[in-house]
Amino acid sequence: MLYSKLFGKTVREAPSDASTISYKLLYQGGFIRESTSGRYFVLPLGQLVQQKIIAIIKDEMDRAGAQEMVSPVLHPLELWKETNRTKTTGFELMRIKDRRGAEFALGGTAEEMFVDVVRKFQISYKDLPFNIYQFSSKFRDELRARGGLLRVREFIMKDAYSFDADESAFKKQYEVMSKTYSAIFERMGFKTIKVESDNGYIGGEYCHEFVVESDAGETTYLTTGDGKYAAHQDVAVFKKDGKNLKEKLEPLKEVEANRGTTMEDGVKLHNKPLWQQIKDVLFVDETGRFILAIIRGDYDVNEIKLKHLSGAIDLRHATNEEIRKKINSEPGFISPVKIKERLNQPQITDERTKKIQLVIIADDSLRTIKNAYGGANKKHKDLFNMNIDRDYKPDVEGDIALAKEGYSTVDGKKLIEKKGIEVGNIFQLGFHYSSKMKGATYIDQQGKEKLYYMGCYGIGIGRTMATVVEKYHDEKGIVWPEAVTPYHVHVIGLDMKEGSVKTQVNKIYKELVDKNIEVLFDDRTEVTAGEKFSDADLIGIPVRLVVSKRTGDKIEYKKRDSKETKLISLDELLKLTK
Amino acid sequence: MLYSKLFGKTVREAPSDASTISYKLLYQGGFIRESTSGRYFVLPLGQLVQQKIIAIIKDEMDRAGAQEMVSPVLHPLELWKETNRTKTTGFELMRIKDRRGAEFALGGTAEEMFVDVVRKFQISYKDLPFNIYQFSSKFRDELRARGGLLRVREFIMKDAYSFDADESAFKKQYEVMSKTYSAIFERMGFKTIKVESDNGYIGGEYCHEFVVESDAGETTYLTTGDGKYAAHQDVAVFKKDGKNLKEKLEPLKEVEANRGTTMEDGVKLHNKPLWQQIKDVLFVDETGRFILAIIRGDYDVNEIKLKHLSGAIDLRHATNEEIRKKINSEPGFISPVKIKERLNQPQITDERTKKIQLVIIADDSLRTIKNAYGGANKKHKDLFNMNIDRDYKPDVEGDIALAKEGYSTVDGKKLIEKKGIEVGNIFQLGFHYSSKMKGATYIDQQGKEKLYYMGCYGIGIGRTMATVVEKYHDEKGIVWPEAVTPYHVHVIGLDMKEGSVKTQVNKIYKELVDKNIEVLFDDRTEVTAGEKFSDADLIGIPVRLVVSKRTGDKIEYKKRDSKETKLISLDELLKLTK
Repeated sequence: MLYSKLFGKTVREAPSDASTISYKLLYQGGFIRESTSGRYFVLPLGQLVQQKIIAIIKDEMDRAGAQEMVSPVLHPLELWKETNRTKTTGFELMRIKDRRGAEFALGGTAEEMFVDVVRKFQISYKDLPFNIYQFSSKFRDELRARGGLLRVREFIMKDAYSFDADESAFKKQYEVMSKTYSAIFERMGFKTIKVESDNGYIGGEYCHEFVVESDAGETTYLTTGDGKYAAHQDVAVFKKDGKNLKEKLEPLKEVEANRGTTMEDGVKLHNKPLWQQIKDVLFVDETGRFILAIIRGDYDVNEIKLKHLSGAIDLRHATNEEIRKKINSEPGFISPVKIKERLNQPQITDERTKKIQLVIIADDSLRTIKNAYGGANKKHKDLFNMNIDRDYKPDVEGDIALAKEGYSTVDGKKLIEKKGIEVGNIFQLGFHYSSKMKGATYIDQQGKEKLYYMGCYGIGIGRTMATVVEKYHDEKGIVWPEAVTPYHVHVIGLDMKEGSVKTQVNKIYKELVDKNIEVLFDDRTEVTAGEKFSDADLIGIPVRLVVSKRTGDKIEYKKRDSKETKLISLDELLKLTK
Repeated sequence: MLYSKLFGKTVREAPSDASTISYKLLYQGGFIRESTSGRYFVLPLGQLVQQKIIAIIKDEMDRAGAQEMVSPVLHPLELWKETNRTKTTGFELMRIKDRRGAEFALGGTAEEMFVDVVRKFQISYKDLPFNIYQFSSKFRDELRARGGLLRVREFIMKDAYSFDADESAFKKQYEVMSKTYSAIFERMGFKTIKVESDNGYIGGEYCHEFVVESDAGETTYLTTGDGKYAAHQDVAVFKKDGKNLKEKLEPLKEVEANRGTTMEDGVKLHNKPLWQQIKDVLFVDETGRFILAIIRGDYDVNEIKLKHLSGAIDLRHATNEEIRKKINSEPGFISPVKIKERLNQPQITDERTKKIQLVIIADDSLRTIKNAYGGANKKHKDLFNMNIDRDYKPDVEGDIALAKEGYSTVDGKKLIEKKGIEVGNIFQLGFHYSSKMKGATYIDQQGKEKLYYMGCYGIGIGRTMATVVEKYHDEKGIVWPEAVTPYHVHVIGLDMKEGSVKTQVNKIYKELVDKNIEVLFDDRTEVTAGEKFSDADLIGIPVRLVVSKRTGDKIEYKKRDSKETKLISLDELLKLTK
């Protein structure tokens, strides 16, 4: 490729909203341009990189037995209604009507579509397992897009969907996909960490993110020094050590508590440890139901875990007015003790008047302490010696605690907090979709209809490209790994107004192209040597060759990741580049 | 690939709406499935074909110097407003709002987007020419989609956009693209006819369709026996021979005409030739303007030509009431003579009352006759001896006649009507977009800003696949040409319950795969030989191999397009399949 004719040349200025180094370099190098916020043009140089990424993913997916296909981008909305995802998607779903009034969702993920195409066939156990995938445009109506390719509103994603006869068959599939993902990212030069994470709007019971450690990332995860445990903060579990378990139960008593409303105010007033206090957080879910989360005072509530345990889709904090008027309690003084007896239920309950619903969800850390203290549901009154089972009974008990750096894993290793970029994810879906969609079945050996067991597997192409740049750059520009570089060799012609140099450099360019080596040839005549060198550093192709008056019949050879240059002959070059 | 594990197997029944053979076979063979009307899943077998089609197009585009990139699918609506295409697009544009209220069009074609990305760079004459293209999903809100891939609402299109310094540079580009298109389709086994066509909603002054002759197609074009002239009926021109040009002008006179309202009624009553009558067709355009199209009686009005000559976007026939009340004329008796003096203009014309506008557009065929007859703008009155210039003056004169089979080209060859499938098109755009969009310029040698001169070039991938099937099939199924076949070889194992046969066929499969030959291996054990043979015929892979008890250590070799079978050894096979 002649650089003079390449569409998308380097520029000196950085984009004003370049919050990440990858955006800055991909912009300056001429790989991408923003269309509108969160939507990008991938320019010819960027497209070469994307195609190499796609080819690596395809190669590994096919090797794992997966089959590529394509689904429409517009999904009939009735499919999303079938699985009730029009309401539960975490990203706002984009919808569109055609002129005949048919409603569609712009695909953000395609579980329903793939189930829909599979149920058009009569599948039997002999057809299983299979794994079908596509590369296609996906849409997320994100409120906040970041500058660059790390969080966007439209992107090319590889999304795969697996169909198995049962859980044990699926587990093998999941393991194969996990290995496939590691192999994919390894070929691009990444060490990925497989991080347990939340399944969010996708559904299913467990899933993993493949994360590349990077401060530019948005994923916070907790891991151990040996890397054997790694989990997204949303789902990380930790060991809740017993505190004063040997104490005997003291009688519950109400005390005066002329204090402020924070946990610290309680600690100070009563001169008792924070962990012995009960932390009460009152939420309201999307149906108007109140959810009281209670936890040991030194821990925080993890809203994701709370959502799963409560079945809520959306949570917001209750207002002071709601706490007073509906719950008949007091902000800063809430207590689980007899709270349900206090509720200000409406007097007349016909169909239009809704009764107040309150669910108490307790973190299991409340079993690690005795004789807890905290509010008494009245202003300036506290309770001492609250004990679970005796004084209050939660509706649901489980793990709703937020793990933090410094906490211990269940086997006693210290958790370290890290940041990273999520480049891929794999999801167990189980029967989540097949149980909701009619006809999502196969015929088993006995001739009976059975639900198939599913998984899904995604990789964002643009984000992967950006992650390569986050990991492989220096102060001068990008340093592409061989596997995903747009070109293998960057030829720079200097002094090209001299006939002999021009002939020489053109000959080298032709020889390399004839040998199927991908070459970008900077043939510009009105640009200084300095500009050509800094453009080459910015674009970041692994090998730079310079031909000039000074190099004679030799070629100056330099690797992008090294400072050393050497003069070599064309023959030596051809050996080196193959 | 093991057929037992392939997703998307053959079925016997045809889709109920299979109006074309390509849809029937692609459905039965397991290449595609409908999602909703006009939107298709491309199954793994179909995707293999699509990828080969894409690779051929990419190879030829790159060879012609074009550069692949990607644009977002959602186009900011303000770009379409900039070129006024929100109103003029022939396909209904699909629009969508995101949750921040930003409006987008779902790309049906991407001229504005490509100009928009180009104007983000400072382009100079040194960067020109360039041609950038993408493969991406396109959307057309068609009212009527046909069953199958020939007319759809969503499809993958290769769309390319060229940028040149001026018209003469563009003409070279257009010629290169024209040759590239012929080469692309030739590699897929098509003879394409380059047909002059209407530019429709794309804009620009001229364009060509690449058409494959086929009765399944929707394109009607007129061509000469030698194929040197080929034009879509919308734009075809023909020779309008002089009739009674030697007659001297007779005085205009009004006569009684107690007749019906058709042209034939006039011919019968006055016993004069049809060609001597004036045909008057009154239209109303999208702004409410009346357009009177007049033409020699033996010709018909071509509405596309009329739109271009009148500048109208939409045309409808005027109602009888409009003809009487507004034009003060009579249906079946309209005449251009003094018609503008008759209009029932509103008495009070303030800003809210619109004056009636009437534009008379005459076909140049009215210069091939003298002393024409026709209506007199009054019921049962006709005029004799109407002559252009003397008795009526059109506002616009030009070619608005519909060409038909049997007419002659300007150089005297007979036009033949044919049907075909439009597989690609190339458009001159000129300054159509660069003049409407701000900053669509380059810096010329003198340092001055100049508009660039554009063209665009499209190929639909799905339609191309369907066209291959329309051209290459027999009564048993598809007969894929080598260049786009999903697999090269279809191996059928029979009697696979016998260990020796199973070993033999597995060995052959492995050998072929190791040699990088693309193999579909029908390894099913519970399917009859007959079913396997008819599946192979339906799917249509060029070479069929059978291994069974009967074939011993040989292999039965058969080409899909031949009846002959032969027994060969594995070595011979490897030579044959290269």
